[in-house]
Amino acid sequence: MSEGTTTIVIFGASGDLAKRKLVPALFTLAAKNRLDANVRIVGASRSTMSDDQFRESMWDALQEFSDLKNRRHDWDRFARRLHYIPADISNPEHFLNMKEHLEELEGDARPANRLFYLSIAPSLYLPAILNLGATDLALEDTGWRRVVIEKPFGWNLESAQALNREVHQVFKEEQVYRIDHYLGKESVQNLLVLRFANAIFEPVWNRNYVDNIQITVAESVDVADRAAYYDESGVVRDMVQNHLLQLLAMVAMEPPSAADAESLRSKKVDVLKAIRRWETDNVSNHAIRGQYEGYLDEKGVDPGSLTGTYVAMRLYVDNWRWRDVPFYLRTGKAMANKTSEIIVQFQSPPHLMFYDRKPDDLSPNVLSVCLQPNEGTHLRFQSKVPDQGMAMQPVDMEFSYETAFRDQSIPEAYELLLEDALQGDASLFIRSDHIEEAWRIVEPLLNWHEIRPPYQYDRGSWGPKAADWLLAQDGRSWVLVCGGS
Amino acid sequence: MSEGTTTIVIFGASGDLAKRKLVPALFTLAAKNRLDANVRIVGASRSTMSDDQFRESMWDALQEFSDLKNRRHDWDRFARRLHYIPADISNPEHFLNMKEHLEELEGDARPANRLFYLSIAPSLYLPAILNLGATDLALEDTGWRRVVIEKPFGWNLESAQALNREVHQVFKEEQVYRIDHYLGKESVQNLLVLRFANAIFEPVWNRNYVDNIQITVAESVDVADRAAYYDESGVVRDMVQNHLLQLLAMVAMEPPSAADAESLRSKKVDVLKAIRRWETDNVSNHAIRGQYEGYLDEKGVDPGSLTGTYVAMRLYVDNWRWRDVPFYLRTGKAMANKTSEIIVQFQSPPHLMFYDRKPDDLSPNVLSVCLQPNEGTHLRFQSKVPDQGMAMQPVDMEFSYETAFRDQSIPEAYELLLEDALQGDASLFIRSDHIEEAWRIVEPLLNWHEIRPPYQYDRGSWGPKAADWLLAQDGRSWVLVCGGS
Repeated sequence: MSEGTTTIVIFGASGDLAKRKLVPALFTLAAKNRLDANVRIVGASRSTMSDDQFRESMWDALQEFSDLKNRRHDWDRFARRLHYIPADISNPEHFLNMKEHLEELEGDARPANRLFYLSIAPSLYLPAILNLGATDLALEDTGWRRVVIEKPFGWNLESAQALNREVHQVFKEEQVYRIDHYLGKESVQNLLVLRFANAIFEPVWNRNYVDNIQITVAESVDVADRAAYYDESGVVRDMVQNHLLQLLAMVAMEPPSAADAESLRSKKVDVLKAIRRWETDNVSNHAIRGQYEGYLDEKGVDPGSLTGTYVAMRLYVDNWRWRDVPFYLRTGKAMANKTSEIIVQFQSPPHLMFYDRKPDDLSPNVLSVCLQPNEGTHLRFQSKVPDQGMAMQPVDMEFSYETAFRDQSIPEAYELLLEDALQGDASLFIRSDHIEEAWRIVEPLLNWHEIRPPYQYDRGSWGPKAADWLLAQDGRSWVLVCGGS
Repeated sequence: MSEGTTTIVIFGASGDLAKRKLVPALFTLAAKNRLDANVRIVGASRSTMSDDQFRESMWDALQEFSDLKNRRHDWDRFARRLHYIPADISNPEHFLNMKEHLEELEGDARPANRLFYLSIAPSLYLPAILNLGATDLALEDTGWRRVVIEKPFGWNLESAQALNREVHQVFKEEQVYRIDHYLGKESVQNLLVLRFANAIFEPVWNRNYVDNIQITVAESVDVADRAAYYDESGVVRDMVQNHLLQLLAMVAMEPPSAADAESLRSKKVDVLKAIRRWETDNVSNHAIRGQYEGYLDEKGVDPGSLTGTYVAMRLYVDNWRWRDVPFYLRTGKAMANKTSEIIVQFQSPPHLMFYDRKPDDLSPNVLSVCLQPNEGTHLRFQSKVPDQGMAMQPVDMEFSYETAFRDQSIPEAYELLLEDALQGDASLFIRSDHIEEAWRIVEPLLNWHEIRPPYQYDRGSWGPKAADWLLAQDGRSWVLVCGGS
C-alpha cells in the first residue's frame, strides 16, 4: 500500500456505526501508525455537508466514543484524510457524481484502490450494490475494489441467497467482506491459538473425552432504544445466526492446514454443514425461546409481540469428531450478567480408585474460555482437600488475559477488521456459503411464533426454566465459570 | 480403636525427630480430636527420666517446634498419655523390662495394640528389631504389633536386602511401615488426585504426547549441622533413593484399580522395575554429580571428600506408556531457590497453521506441579498477544493450593502418617520390594567417586553446568515454573 492510493468510502457516514466504531477505529489505526499515509476516507450519506462539517462531526463523535479524544493534534493531521460526498443510495446519478469525485481525489496515483463500506440499513444493500455495479464504481480498472457488508446479511435463507446472487453479479466472492465484528475480537481469535498452537487440548477435543459443549452469550441490557428494530428481527437473527454459530464453528472445526482465508473458512463451513437439521415441527424438542417480562411495554414493541429475546438450543455436529456430543447454545437480553463464555465439559474419569466413590460423584473437568468481559481461560479440576482424608473438591486453574497483557491495550474489533480488509485478508469475514448454511440452520426457528409463544422470564434471571429442563432431559445442567451462575 | 488400648513406643524419644515432629504431630492429632482416647505414647531412650521429666521436655520442645505452643490446657490433658521407659536398644534386659512396663500400662484392656516407632540411628534398627523379636514384644498375642522404620532403610542394595530379611524374621511384611515422610505431604498425595480423579490429564499422560518429565527437588540450605552424617551418605542416599524415586513412581505409575496399600504400591514398584538399568561404567553418560563450593570447609566434612551434594540424571521407564521419554531428576543443596517441582513437558503441536511458524518455534505446553513451597498447579500454554497480528506468547493458567484452601491448614506429613499407621493403612509407606528396587536403581551411583570426582558448583546456583549439558545433549533444557529459573 505504500504506493498508489486507497479510498475507503463509508456509506452511512452520518450513522451510528460510523461515528461509534468506524471512524474511531481508523483514527486509532492512524495513531498507531498502522494506516498507510495514502489511505483516505470518504464519508457518504444523504445529508448535505462540506468536508469540514463532516470532519467536525466526526471529531464530536470521537469525544464521546474514543479513548483518543484528547489527541486534537493527531486528529488535525488525520482529518485531512477525511472527505465527504453526499449520496442517496437509490440514486444512480449520485453514484456517477461520486465516481467523478473519487477520480478527482485519486488523481494520477496508481493503483487507486477502493473499499466500499456499507454501513447502511440492510434494505439498502441491494440498491447500493447495484448502483456500484451500474456506474462502474466497482470496476477494477485503476486498482482493487472491495465491499464490506455489515450484518445482517439477509433476513432468512431465501433473502440471503438472493442477496448473494445479486452481489455476485457485481463483485467476485473474493471482493466481498461480510463482517461479523465478533470475529475481530481478540478473545475470539485467541480461540484459534488456544486450539491450534497448543498440543494438549486437541487430543481430548472430541467425542471420546468431551461430554458436552456450552456457549453462553448473555447480555444484561435490555433492547433499550433498539426496540423497534429488535422486535422485527428477534434474538435468532440478532445473535444466533451470526455470533453463536461462528463461535460454535470455531470450537468444533477441524485443524486447518493453513491460516489463509479459504482454508480457515472452509473448515468452519464444514462444521455448519455437519449440523443435524431440525424439522420445523420438532423445533420445540431442541430449542426454547423466551421473552423477558416487560418486553411488551418497551417503546417500539408491538404489544402483542411474540418476538424472542432469549433462546437456548441443543445442536449436534454429525461428524467423526463430534457425533452425539450436544452443543448447548443460549443467548438473551436482560439477563443476570453480561458474559460470553465457552464451556467444554469433559466426561467423568472412567474409574475412580478412591474408596466409596463413583466417577459420577465428582463434578467433571471443565475448560472454560471466557470471551468477555473477563477474558481468560479456566480449567476446573479435582483437587484434594487438605487434612480430610481423600476428600476432593473442584478447583480452578486460571489465566486472565488482561492480567497477563496488562501493558497492551486490547484493540477494538473494527480496527483489526478494517486493517484486514485493507490488506485483503478475508479470514475473519464470512464467506457466502457460510452465511447460507447459517441461515439454513436457524430457518426452523424463524417461524417459530407460529408454533408456540415464547416463555416469559424475569429480568436479571438466566432465562426461562424451560432452558434448564432442556439440559435436564439429558441429565445435564448449564455451567458458567467466569460469568457467575 | 474405640475399645481396647494402643501404645505407641517411640524409640529415640530424646532425639530430634521425636521432639520436632513426632510428639508435636501426635499432640496436633489429639487437639483435632483425631487421636483415640485409648492411645498412649511411651518414650524410650537411653537417658534416665521420670514420666514427668519426659512430659516437661516434650512441652519445651513444643514451644520451639509447634504452632500449638500456647495450648497449655490441652497439653496438660495430652501429657497424661505420655510415659517414659529407659531403654538401651542393644540390651535385651531393657526390652524385657519394657514389656513388663507396657503390660502394666495396658492392664486388662483388650485388644492391647503396640506401634513401635524406630526413631533411632540406622545402625540400631537391626538390634532393635531383634530384641523386639527375642523378648516377644512383637508377638501378636494381646493385639496387633506394628513397627515404623525411619529412613534410610539400608545403606545400599545388599544391606537393605539383609535388613529386610532380618525384619521379616520378626515381623510379617504387613506389620512393617517403612516411612518416607515425603509421601505424607498433601502435595504429594494430591498427585494421585490430580492424575486419577480428573479425566483430562490421563489421555495425554504418555509417550504419544509427553516430550519429557523433570523432577527438581532443590534446597537452598547447605548441609549445615548435618555435615558429618551427610558426608557419609551423600545426595543419592539422602534424596534420590527415597524422595525422588517416589515422585517418579507416582508420576509414571499406571492407574491403580483401588487405593488400598497393595494395589497402589504394586503399581509404583512396576515403575521402578521398568527403569532402564545403567551399567556402572556408563553412569557418567546419564548422571552428573556436583559438590557446592565450600563444602569441603564445612565442619565435619572430610577435607578430601568426594561426596556429592547435587545430582542430576536421566532415566527411562521401559514400558508401553513411557518408552523413550526421558525423566530428568535433579536435587541438591545450597541451590538458588528452595523448590520441589514436577514438570511435564509436552511435545510441540504436530503442525502450525500460522504463517511462517514452525511447531518448534513455540515453547511447548508444560504442566507443572509445585510441591513446595508454593504448592499448586500451572499449565503453560500459548496465547495470542493482543494487537500484534498472530504473535503468540506462553502464558500460565495457575492454581494455588493455599489460596484455594485458605481456611484449612495444611497438616504436617507426620500427622497423617502416624494416623495411617495407627489405622493399619500402609498405602503411604514403602514396601520391601520397592525399597530394594530403589536401591538397585541407584546402586551404580553409590561407588561413583571411584569413577570421577564431582563437578564444583557455586552456592546459590542451579548446580554445575554439566547438568545443563546433560539435557542439551538431548536438545532440551531444565524448566521451572514456580521455583524461579
